[in-house]
Amino acid sequence: MIEEKIKELTGYELPVPAKPLAAYVPVQISGNLVFTAGQLPTIEGKLIAEGKVGKDVTVEKAAECARIAALNCLSVIKAEIGNLDKIKKIVKLTVFVNSSDNFNEQPKVANGASELLIGLFGEKGKHARSAVGVNELPINAPVEIEMIVEITV
Amino acid sequence: MIEEKIKELTGYELPVPAKPLAAYVPVQISGNLVFTAGQLPTIEGKLIAEGKVGKDVTVEKAAECARIAALNCLSVIKAEIGNLDKIKKIVKLTVFVNSSDNFNEQPKVANGASELLIGLFGEKGKHARSAVGVNELPINAPVEIEMIVEITV
Amino acid sequence: MIEEKIKELTGYELPVPAKPLAAYVPVQISGNLVFTAGQLPTIEGKLIAEGKVGKDVTVEKAAECARIAALNCLSVIKAEIGNLDKIKKIVKLTVFVNSSDNFNEQPKVANGASELLIGLFGEKGKHARSAVGVNELPINAPVEIEMIVEITV
Repeated sequence: MIEEKIKELTGYELPVPAKPLAAYVPVQISGNLVFTAGQLPTIEGKLIAEGKVGKDVTVEKAAECARIAALNCLSVIKAEIGNLDKIKKIVKLTVFVNSSDNFNEQPKVANGASELLIGLFGEKGKHARSAVGVNELPINAPVEIEMIVEITV
Repeated sequence: MIEEKIKELTGYELPVPAKPLAAYVPVQISGNLVFTAGQLPTIEGKLIAEGKVGKDVTVEKAAECARIAALNCLSVIKAEIGNLDKIKKIVKLTVFVNSSDNFNEQPKVANGASELLIGLFGEKGKHARSAVGVNELPINAPVEIEMIVEITV
Repeated sequence: MIEEKIKELTGYELPVPAKPLAAYVPVQISGNLVFTAGQLPTIEGKLIAEGKVGKDVTVEKAAECARIAALNCLSVIKAEIGNLDKIKKIVKLTVFVNSSDNFNEQPKVANGASELLIGLFGEKGKHARSAVGVNELPINAPVEIEMIVEITV
């Protein structure tokens, strides 16, 4: 059901899980908490935008990046738990925004992820969130997102 | 009891919970863990200081910012759980410090939050903590703090 | 057993736990989750390298920093739980990399930690991970790492 909504709301299929850029796993579970690795705004392994938000990337494009990174979080969670309908609630998002000097609209960027999750999961999609500026991110991604969700076990 | 101590130790009442700057909730609970959204050093919606620590903001003022951001964490937790005396322990703080070039005293800044929590909660207030420098934060805040606490359920 | 492997794989004894730089504790436990404070690449209280990766510190040296910071995480966990063999799984790493302009190889740096953990703990050592660039870190450390592990209680 959630997967159908993803198509409906975003026009995208749930992405193929991105391979970790290195020596770790994309998801780890402890009890009923699922922790994702940091996910980037890639589609089929390619960034949809590159560089610093506020200089190389507009707020609107960066919000779309956040949306895709959140989809990639869901994608790796699904690969692990089999079915996104097992998600009981989205607990926490940390959204790192590759920020140019004087760029302070990290919350608007992060909304791309938050609004998607609320659109998809409704009440269960409401989450605590931190949006933080950073000066550099892996492969010069504009956004990196990590997610904690609670699942039914 | 904790609320009385807040008044005593800080001279402030527990602040009115800040509204999220965007599409998320200030607190999410999973089991007996409470995760806050990133909180800024605002009083009645206004930052008590603005800009980069080490350039625009002194270490002392930034520590006061950390103290207020921690109070805002407690404020949103209280709005959710009803009573701060339900807190069993403060588990983890992440303190992001908006840092000017060559500013490396993030721990001194974060102490503003840590010392308050230990003052308020004593043994229960002892927490693991990361203090990290970042180049930009939402609305140009000097500090952003997120907190994980364990509650009795 | 894990401690013997540490010697074998790294040539180091498990370090003496670093004292917190400030008013917090190095480890907090909630249920069967252990949260470490952010750990720096220090040996006997001294950084093994200093400054920004990509400018002052090579990727290779930074990966060694990540390895040492991860060892310091294990060291403070051991001081709390008594025996590293109680670790059921490494759940999550956040690796903050003090990054020069245009440095985007945070994952390679973080691999220093991830590869050590997988070498030490095998299947149990596989973890979710975020690698993030930041502009400054405490005492000008090249890397700061925080860890969440699950223990048997």
